Amino acid sequence: MKVQPIEAHEQNPVQMDGASGAKMRMLIGPAEQAKNFHMRHFSVEPGGYTPHHQHDYEHEIVVLKGSGVAKSEQGDREFSAGDIIWVPANEMHQFQNTGGDALEFICLIPAPMDCSK
Amino acid sequence: MKVQPIEAHEQNPVQMDGASGAKMRMLIGPAEQAKNFHMRHFSVEPGGYTPHHQHDYEHEIVVLKGSGVAKSEQGDREFSAGDIIWVPANEMHQFQNTGGDALEFICLIPAPMDCSK
Repeated sequence: MKVQPIEAHEQNPVQMDGASGAKMRMLIGPAEQAKNFHMRHFSVEPGGYTPHHQHDYEHEIVVLKGSGVAKSEQGDREFSAGDIIWVPANEMHQFQNTGGDALEFICLIPAPMDCSK
Repeated sequence: MKVQPIEAHEQNPVQMDGASGAKMRMLIGPAEQAKNFHMRHFSVEPGGYTPHHQHDYEHEIVVLKGSGVAKSEQGDREFSAGDIIWVPANEMHQFQNTGGDALEFICLIPAPMDCSK
């Protein structure tokens, strides 16, 4: 078992095209040999955002601090700390910090699946 | 996309043998057709605990509120809000609320894998 505060994990800027003012921490992933899904932490400064994009895997999200707007295929959705967000595979999405404080959320993605093992 | 507060999800007592004072909410699971991993919310009252057990799948945990002790194969580990806990598959574990307030955490598990699809 591993028990560590979020802050103990290395934080790096999100370098993807279309992102601004966003940083990421890998919380549980390859280092733990987590074979089914990976847990990441995102911090987005006021006015910042993640890329407006889509991909063939889902997101499962827990909003920890702050507030913002999620752009979705069903329109803009406001969210704040304590909200759970489900983004199905292949849906366009973006998370914008529209509040005055840092936006922090946990975002999980599937790990690559290897059916040969 | 689905955006909902944790509290909007139905809460039920954890009925498993060895659990006491614990309640669960399914946040993202079969209802969302989440095929890779499922997100649950647990609330444990002061003095309560989850079962001391093991299983062939991992846990990825975010502690939201309160504090407690995790029994692990490496001994007892204190934890509190803001901690991330990784429990590898097949490791014995239990979460006890040793604080004076409700303990709340998010716990993710893999969904059944179907390699025929």
